[in-house]
Amino acid sequence: MNKSVKSILAAMIVVASAGALAQQGQPKPENLIKWRQSAYQVLAWNSGRLKANVDGQYNKDEVVKAANTIAAIANSGLGALFAAGTEQGKGWHDTSTKPEFFKDAHRVGELAGNFNKEANELAKVAVAGDAAAVKEQFGKLGKSCKACHDDFKIKD
Amino acid sequence: MNKSVKSILAAMIVVASAGALAQQGQPKPENLIKWRQSAYQVLAWNSGRLKANVDGQYNKDEVVKAANTIAAIANSGLGALFAAGTEQGKGWHDTSTKPEFFKDAHRVGELAGNFNKEANELAKVAVAGDAAAVKEQFGKLGKSCKACHDDFKIKD
Repeated sequence: MNKSVKSILAAMIVVASAGALAQQGQPKPENLIKWRQSAYQVLAWNSGRLKANVDGQYNKDEVVKAANTIAAIANSGLGALFAAGTEQGKGWHDTSTKPEFFKDAHRVGELAGNFNKEANELAKVAVAGDAAAVKEQFGKLGKSCKACHDDFKIKD
Repeated sequence: MNKSVKSILAAMIVVASAGALAQQGQPKPENLIKWRQSAYQVLAWNSGRLKANVDGQYNKDEVVKAANTIAAIANSGLGALFAAGTEQGKGWHDTSTKPEFFKDAHRVGELAGNFNKEANELAKVAVAGDAAAVKEQFGKLGKSCKACHDDFKIKD
């Protein structure tokens, strides 16, 4: 499967997840926004733990836990939290997602695919336990986060 | 290992995690509180998804994702987010954790151990794919959540 087809499929999954949610009795937009803001905070917590470990005293168990948590969030189907109706609104705070996010499923699918790939790779590398390899892969994960923030996150 | 020893060990892990965090340059208490409130919201999102699936149209892929996310949060080392200094304070909102939580490491360890056990079991059962078994195990997980909320969560 080529990269472009993968991106389109990833975008279709986002749309399909949103559709599935609607069928189940869709949660309120403010809850979806609160949950996505929460999920990104859990990512921030675990990124901070990883940074502290790769820059300071390395604890393999801590790194594995943090990497697994990030991978689980990446694999959780976050797309469903960006369902139609959540383009604007307040969860814990006003959404930080740019309106463009909801209009470019192709680019979003590509960025989400990259994030998932790097997060799952980090979880694997963490188990192997080589600190230098973890640091390198953590850098790649960070770039995949930044790429999406640059395009689609409203700056504070 | 008997149950009591397991509980004490679980409590020691909570304390040790808090200690490890302090060594790394401890994040601010308000961040720890915000992260734990976020982690519980991610649990709420995924519990809601599971409930919608076991009570409505069952989608194995959705159930596996939700169960894996809950298990990953359970295994993430949440204890570190309840480090000394976070007994009171505001993350997204004033902490909902009762002061008693910070004084009963034995009971907290026991409850946390039960939650982890039921969450990891649910992730296994979800992969096997039997909807009735998932519903039963989801009920057990819910009881382990409620047991801790009853003892240590300030009611809204």
